[in-house]
Order: sequence, then C-alpha cells, then structure tokens
Amino acid sequence: LTSPAEAHAESLIGQPRSRWSLPTPALVVDLDAFEANVAKMAARAAEAGVALRPHAKTHKSAFIAARQIEAGAVGICCAKLGEAEALAEAGVPDILVTSPIASPELAQRAAVLVKRGGRLAVSVDDPLGVAVLAAAAAREGVCMTVQIDVDVGTRRTGVADVDHALALADAIAASPGLTLRGVQGYGGQWQHAVGAEARMEAAKAGMARLSAVVQALRGHGHDCATVTGGGTGTNTADLALGVLNELQPGSYIFMDNQYVDALGADEDGAFATSLFVQAQVISANAPRWVTVDAGLKAFATDGPPPRPASAPFAHDGYFFFGDEHGGLMRQHGETVVLGQRVELTAPHCDPTVDRYDRMHFVRGDVLVAIHPIEAARRSQ
Amino acid sequence: LTSPAEAHAESLIGQPRSRWSLPTPALVVDLDAFEANVAKMAARAAEAGVALRPHAKTHKSAFIAARQIEAGAVGICCAKLGEAEALAEAGVPDILVTSPIASPELAQRAAVLVKRGGRLAVSVDDPLGVAVLAAAAAREGVCMTVQIDVDVGTRRTGVADVDHALALADAIAASPGLTLRGVQGYGGQWQHAVGAEARMEAAKAGMARLSAVVQALRGHGHDCATVTGGGTGTNTADLALGVLNELQPGSYIFMDNQYVDALGADEDGAFATSLFVQAQVISANAPRWVTVDAGLKAFATDGPPPRPASAPFAHDGYFFFGDEHGGLMRQHGETVVLGQRVELTAPHCDPTVDRYDRMHFVRGDVLVAIHPIEAARRSQ
Repeated sequence: LTSPAEAHAESLIGQPRSRWSLPTPALVVDLDAFEANVAKMAARAAEAGVALRPHAKTHKSAFIAARQIEAGAVGICCAKLGEAEALAEAGVPDILVTSPIASPELAQRAAVLVKRGGRLAVSVDDPLGVAVLAAAAAREGVCMTVQIDVDVGTRRTGVADVDHALALADAIAASPGLTLRGVQGYGGQWQHAVGAEARMEAAKAGMARLSAVVQALRGHGHDCATVTGGGTGTNTADLALGVLNELQPGSYIFMDNQYVDALGADEDGAFATSLFVQAQVISANAPRWVTVDAGLKAFATDGPPPRPASAPFAHDGYFFFGDEHGGLMRQHGETVVLGQRVELTAPHCDPTVDRYDRMHFVRGDVLVAIHPIEAARRSQ
Repeated sequence: LTSPAEAHAESLIGQPRSRWSLPTPALVVDLDAFEANVAKMAARAAEAGVALRPHAKTHKSAFIAARQIEAGAVGICCAKLGEAEALAEAGVPDILVTSPIASPELAQRAAVLVKRGGRLAVSVDDPLGVAVLAAAAAREGVCMTVQIDVDVGTRRTGVADVDHALALADAIAASPGLTLRGVQGYGGQWQHAVGAEARMEAAKAGMARLSAVVQALRGHGHDCATVTGGGTGTNTADLALGVLNELQPGSYIFMDNQYVDALGADEDGAFATSLFVQAQVISANAPRWVTVDAGLKAFATDGPPPRPASAPFAHDGYFFFGDEHGGLMRQHGETVVLGQRVELTAPHCDPTVDRYDRMHFVRGDVLVAIHPIEAARRSQ
C-alpha cells in the first residue's frame, strides 16, 4: 500500500529540483557521494587481495546490496536472521549472519532459508548453537555453513579463547549437516576510536587473538578458509594487518556524524557523507530559530546531533525539539519561508536508516529513484 | 506479508506461557496495566468535566485508539497528517492534527481526507496556513475545521501573542471553507519537569497565556468552543487550572522511564508501566554480563536507559552494546541459559513504539493478541 505522501514522492521522480520538495521527513541518499564510497572501498579491498562482504545492517536495502555486489563484493553480511530472510526474499544471493544463533526457532528458520536455495552462512559461539543448527539441518535435510564467532576483546559475542574455539570446531566437524566456513572477529567498540593510531593499536591486539585461533584450528586439521571481520573505522588497519581475508565494513557508504568525527582527518576525506534526513520549516514565529518537522522520531540520537547541510541553514545549529520537531538556531539573517527544505546529517546511520521504510536517491537536485528498505526493523 | 518471525509469533497466541517465547526484539504491552491506565485518565477527565482526546503520537495504533474511545475519549490527536491518514484508514473516527499545517501539499491531503468522510481538525499558526487550507477546501469543495495553535511559552510552534491569534481568527472567519474550532496550547517541555510543584508553576504560566487569547477571541466575537492541550506530566495541574476543556495526554497509557522518574512519587503510582521490549540472551561467554539481542535499534535512546523488569534479570543493569546488542550486568548468580527472555522498560515510549510494526498484547504469561502499529513512521 502506498500512502498519500509516498504517492506524491513518486510523482516527483525525474522532475527538475525535485530533491527539494520531498514529503518530509524523508531519508535521502546522494548518489554521487554514495557511488564514490562504494567504488573506493571496493578498490581498497581489491588492491589488498581481500574479499569484500559489506555489512547490510547499515542499509538493509536490496538495491544497495546489488550495487555493492556489482562493484565486486562477494556478498553481504546481515546482523540478524530476520534481515537475511528479508534480503534473500528481495533477491540478494549470498548472505552471512554475523550474530550468533543458538535458539531452536532461529536454527529452524535458517535451515528453511537454506532449503529454499538461499546461499547462507551463520555464526555460533556456544555448543548449544552447534546442537540446534545440526538438529535443524538434519530435520530439513540440508547442509548448513557455519562460522565460529571469536571474541577479539570486546566481550560482546564470540568464544572466549582457543580451547572453546577448538571445541566448537570439533562439534561442527562431528555434525553431518554442518560445514565450517571459518572464523569471525569483530571489534565493534574500536570502530569509532578517534585517531588512526588508536584504531590500529586496538585492531592489532584483536587480530592477534583471532590469528591465534586460526593457527590452532588449522593445526588441528580444521579447514578455516575464511577469516572475516573488520569495519569502516579500522578498514585501513584491517587491510594492513593481513589477518582477515574478508572485510565487513558497513557505514562507509553513508558516513554519519560519528564516523566523520572519528575518521575525518586521518582518512583525508576518502569517504563522503551521502545520507541525509530532509525536513521542512513548519513554524517561524520565534525570534532566533525556526521549527522543522524532524525530531526524535526522525533520527537515531546516539551520536553527535544532526547537522544542517544545505543552504540557507548550513551554518545553523540543530536541536531536538520533541518527538516530531527540531529547531534550527539561525546564525545569519536570510529570509526563511514555511515549507523551505533543509537536509541534515545523521548522528548514527544504521539505527537512523532503520526508522524509515524508503530511501530517496538523488543526483544533484533531482530525485531519480525511490527504493524500499526491505530489511528495516527485521531484527528478529 | 507476514515474516517468518511474525508467523511464529501468531502461532503462539493463547498458548500457556507464550509471553516468554516471542521472537525478539518484540514490543510488548501488558494489558492489565494498560487498561488500568486508560480507565484512570478517563475517570480523571470525566470527574473534571473535561473532554479527553488522547494523543496517538504515543501509540500510533487503531486498536489502542478504539480502546481509549470506548473508555470515553471524544477522539484522538495525531502529531502529523500522515498519522491521521493512516489511523483514519484504519477506522479511527475523529482526529485532531496538532502540528501546524502550512504547505499546499499538506493542505491538499487534509482536504482529500475530509472529502473521504474523515472527521478531521487541523492546526495553523501562520497566515500562510490559513491561505493554503482555504484554497484546498475550495478546490475540494469541503468545509475544514481549523484551530489556532498558541505558543504557551516553549517557542516551538504557535502564534506568539494575542494580536497574531486575532489576525488568524479573522482570516479563518473570512474564508468560506474554514471553521474555527478553538485554540490549542501545549507545553511539551514542561511535561517531564520533576516535581508536581514545578509542573504546576509552568502550566499556570502557560495557561494564563492561553486564557488571554481565549478571552480576546471571544471578546472579538470569535467562537472559541474548544480549548485543548495538556499532557501526561501536567494532567493534574491542567485539570485543576480549569482553562482547558479538552485534554491531550499520550504517554499515560505506557509510562516510560522518563515519566516514571518525573511523576513517580507525586502521582503515587497512579499510572503503571505497561510497555516493554522483550529480548533474549544470545551470548553468555563473558564473566560478568550476558549479551541480549536488543540494542540501539530496539529502543529510542533519548531517556534513561532501558531497565530490566523480569526475573532473573530485574536487579541487573542494562547497557547498550551496539546496534543489535545490549548487555545485562549480572548482580546475582542465577544460571542464565541462551534463549532466556528478559523484558525491559523503554527510555522514551513514543519514538520507541515508532521503531516497531506490531505490538504484542499480553495478559499475565499469555500472549493474547498482536496488532499492527498502523501509523508507525507516518510522520509526513
């Protein structure tokens, strides 16, 4: 079902200056910046001889996954099985689920997805995960590809040490329906460390832990073909360290305020902000600010506040003004009219994108396409 | 389309202890607490002789709107026209849009909604709003009901003073297709003030401003039948002050962490928390905490962090652990197994609910119904 606002947006596609009259709040992707980001990371991975498997938890979009695969990615990552189901349904051909699976219900759904022909790999960090996946594979008569999630120092998920990794690998080897893909080590907390040296130090320590597990598994005769992990923040460190042979960056396509602040100087502007929330002025009766129609429901708030990025508001400060409202503190005196549009950067891209159902793709001043965000809120 | 997780949830309805095996993260509403909250606010408004028009920006749900109307509410409020379109489509009979409308596109959509038979009132705070609504009403051949939004001190939206209110009322009176409903004054920022006295002082000042506008409009011959506003935080003050004849509280049905902290002691537990996010343990390899599958995408983060509310986690502290993960810092030593469920309270209910597509209604340990959140993300 198309809402009246969505129908109006669709009628604007291809019209001159249509970028600046979207029904708001609207999620906007600037194609020039987005395409340059996709190409840049693909080139970096290719140059290093490392497979690129971008993380789709950032975009949750089959259209974007297809652009990444066209540019050379071997497939995508999903954080949750629900995302993988949605994107497989939308035609994405090769998916790795990075959060560990341990419940019988999730194992069963994963086996059903494999049976339907989806190319899927899943993660485990506990013997229970191996057991429920083996049972589901047997029940559905499929072979499932499994990787061992290794804790590289964040203590969020993953086996804690080499011994636990070996025990899981042995259990997988003993399960007729399961095949070991390799290992994963992801340092989520390091990605936003400020300064290339800080990120390199953290990545080095984490990759040493992962490398020890890889050596032990191979030493015990386990095929450990894929060593996957890494992210946008540590991408240069990950490629330089040479432990990973598959890279999982997500946010590089959009570059939110968190990453711009963390990477800005070090990366010399390699990746440009391509994601915006468009709002419009709906009230202008206060002396020093105007009120726009994008507030706490339009952005994830776990990062530096939205920043206006379009004239005449680019020098103004944004403040949250309630569930549905934001304020723009005017720095200069240009006349503002009701209905005037402003585009704002996102504090944190992944949970911001997750709040929308559609992305509006623009080139210059023109709205060129609208695509659904198929896996938005499919976190189950 | 029903996802595999949604289909699984539906299969659980009515089963013993089904509350504790939902696909997670899941939005859960405890019916006993919810119904008591609905009845309590209805009784307070009825006793004061004030019409109750709960704000649906909190729940965005036709099912909940119907429960509120059954309990005596005269209709509901919506923050945005998009919400009103979605809830009118889902059968909600009487809707007031509280954010001012000033763009031709929004005015046109509002006129179309009226033409389809929806009982709708909209807000204005600028002469441009009156002009575009008058034009749309003429174009569609309908009569539209309009209220004047009055700034009661927050400088977010609303006319700034009596003179501007009179000018708008005159413009409405001069527009054949428009009828003046009355005035609105809402002090969003006061709602979470801690302490009944602080809220009373703020409400008193704001209601004095609103009252001055009402007197002036009536003195100039304008019918100003409805004086609407107020919220959960100031509900007792609003009813005591006697300026409003229609009350717009929203969050009282759910009671999030912000409101529990602000109202807890003063209101003597009048309203109980009924809204929870259910998560499950997906990794348990760290010594002092376990990892659950609800993180930055499962909650709005603009309020006090989620609080575990179910055994054996009720004494644990929750911390955000990434987009899809949270941590529970264990205080006691009970054994935790993978897949074990935990329910957590919401930092801020409105934008948390807006992140979901369905609500799971439970009574005791049983899942009794699942309803869509029709107006989620319909903020345009």
